[in-house]
Amino acid sequence: MNIRDVDTPALVIDLDKVEKNLKAMAEYCRSHHINLRPHTKTHKMPSLAKRQLEHGATGLTVAKLGEAEIMVESGVDRLLVAYPIIGRPKAERLAALCEKADVTIALDSPEAVDFAARGTSERGVRAGILVEVDVGFRRCGVQDDQAALKLAQRIIDCSSLEFRGLLFYPGSYVTQETQEEQLRKVNASLERLLDSFQANGIPVPVVSGGSTPTARFSHRFSGLTEIRPGTYIFNDRNTMLHGVAQLDDCAGTVIVTVVSKAVPGKVIVDGGSKTFSSDPCLAGHTGFGLVKEDPEAVFVAMNEEHGYLDVSRSGRRYAIGEKLGVIPNHICATVNLHNEVFFARGETVESVCPVAARGKIR
Amino acid sequence: MNIRDVDTPALVIDLDKVEKNLKAMAEYCRSHHINLRPHTKTHKMPSLAKRQLEHGATGLTVAKLGEAEIMVESGVDRLLVAYPIIGRPKAERLAALCEKADVTIALDSPEAVDFAARGTSERGVRAGILVEVDVGFRRCGVQDDQAALKLAQRIIDCSSLEFRGLLFYPGSYVTQETQEEQLRKVNASLERLLDSFQANGIPVPVVSGGSTPTARFSHRFSGLTEIRPGTYIFNDRNTMLHGVAQLDDCAGTVIVTVVSKAVPGKVIVDGGSKTFSSDPCLAGHTGFGLVKEDPEAVFVAMNEEHGYLDVSRSGRRYAIGEKLGVIPNHICATVNLHNEVFFARGETVESVCPVAARGKIR
Repeated sequence: MNIRDVDTPALVIDLDKVEKNLKAMAEYCRSHHINLRPHTKTHKMPSLAKRQLEHGATGLTVAKLGEAEIMVESGVDRLLVAYPIIGRPKAERLAALCEKADVTIALDSPEAVDFAARGTSERGVRAGILVEVDVGFRRCGVQDDQAALKLAQRIIDCSSLEFRGLLFYPGSYVTQETQEEQLRKVNASLERLLDSFQANGIPVPVVSGGSTPTARFSHRFSGLTEIRPGTYIFNDRNTMLHGVAQLDDCAGTVIVTVVSKAVPGKVIVDGGSKTFSSDPCLAGHTGFGLVKEDPEAVFVAMNEEHGYLDVSRSGRRYAIGEKLGVIPNHICATVNLHNEVFFARGETVESVCPVAARGKIR
Repeated sequence: MNIRDVDTPALVIDLDKVEKNLKAMAEYCRSHHINLRPHTKTHKMPSLAKRQLEHGATGLTVAKLGEAEIMVESGVDRLLVAYPIIGRPKAERLAALCEKADVTIALDSPEAVDFAARGTSERGVRAGILVEVDVGFRRCGVQDDQAALKLAQRIIDCSSLEFRGLLFYPGSYVTQETQEEQLRKVNASLERLLDSFQANGIPVPVVSGGSTPTARFSHRFSGLTEIRPGTYIFNDRNTMLHGVAQLDDCAGTVIVTVVSKAVPGKVIVDGGSKTFSSDPCLAGHTGFGLVKEDPEAVFVAMNEEHGYLDVSRSGRRYAIGEKLGVIPNHICATVNLHNEVFFARGETVESVCPVAARGKIR
């Protein structure tokens, strides 16, 4: 089947582009002796997680336990849950996972240490722990080396937990101008942390950082041992606008149909926020996606099922019923809205793949 | 089970508030002799669709055929698909639905008439058709009375289609100041249309309009016979900000857990854009939801799994692991992200209900 014969809206993933993206990131990591632990939040599909492992990933990253459970069920045996596990029910699920796989979690509070310790010790299993440190992004993460040391010591004191190192989130989208400045700040934080751990005789085997936008300067982060990029497998309009991908690197395209052109200067397509997500694009730009067939069309607005293209400055003629390919702003959020995706190579659909870990918010 | 014992993030629906909201809208419609055809896109659950029918709704509205199929499978037999059905596969699905239920669709192009005519005539069924007219919102809809008449005539000429009237979308959020102005414009359009149809001897049994924000002045739209509000069943932060609901009318609350407070002045909760959607709130306001426990907390940002509360101006103390209730900006988009919701009355969870029509984008 041709990708234009799929009923719309539909998310089509080009497997040739996926392979190219996986290979390029794997090669970057190999050449810099950095471990690659891809974040599966972008694709949410065990088959693609396995391709990442086959390309040499040392393990995989997930955000939520529900995602981890899907991945472990499908045979993935090395996972980082890069999210604080809080509460008894989740601590018990974590412990159950530790029976089946080598699981590491990230945390930034003594409460989270205690939940993990209790869950694992009651079940007689062990979990690896990374202490999340804030290097300037101000989301999660302890604020200084003393807090990090204290937390590490609390972990070391629990026999069912293994302190494995530090995790940081380097932010996502930085401009070229601020990149060097940001790098300096992050490295100052990391160096102070690593010095303190060394002074206290606590080994730090893992320093985990790195998003897709920052991936290619990961080798310049002080002491970094692994990165967790997610978006690189598919890319999207935001990675393009950020200059870390080209259109040809974008593996995910939403195919939509023109359903109305009754209003002059406007074309309505059958995908809106329920198909693309409402995620905006990189600051300084506008629009909700890139129409591949018409760079002059502006994806100006959405309702749940309506996408509004402003075509008033376009010379292209649109027909009711014709199909268009749109690169979404944020592919991770888009994938999460689709029950299944269509795997293709070029113009040919090869198979339909359920998005097994979509909607796993707990 | 108490609603605070549900693992998070979780969407809890208060059935007492639902009943109150359903009753109030039904009474408004009854008192003004307006037919009520609620839009099920807000709840996506057949059990709530049936409650709407039991409260006197003359039928239900859906946006996509996938939603219609779920509703018809569960026994709903009068449906309006308020969306253009374009393409052969969808025309065939429409015809299959017409075998099982009384289905009306809205459209605004001759192409859409032809798709519907072909699908229904091949299967030997009939579909009702409303011609969508643009009364100023500039999304879908023919632009003037001549175009509407032409389309109606094309429908009348097809033996498998039945022209049932006009459909318009009155916009959603208008300020009190612009309300009278907007009403005047919409009525001018409607009156011209109805005059033209009368002059041409074409009866217009149905004039369908009305969103939740405009619902309560529906009786002032010229010639209107039915409304299609959706959000009123649950309400949300946007209907509150718009002044058409109070906090006590909001039936949908997302329960989240505090997972980090490592960064001073900030609290991170375990629901982000994968739980709430990124839908912004009404222009002129900011934030992604209302924290019921702390009106001084500002829900300033989200990543997929992280909600950022700015609590720097709050006197409240937060604890890791505590649960908070958040009213989302846009409940329809929130519901669509949840595989199931928790039905409650007050503080007590009564049951878990799958969101059967979630993700039905086709």
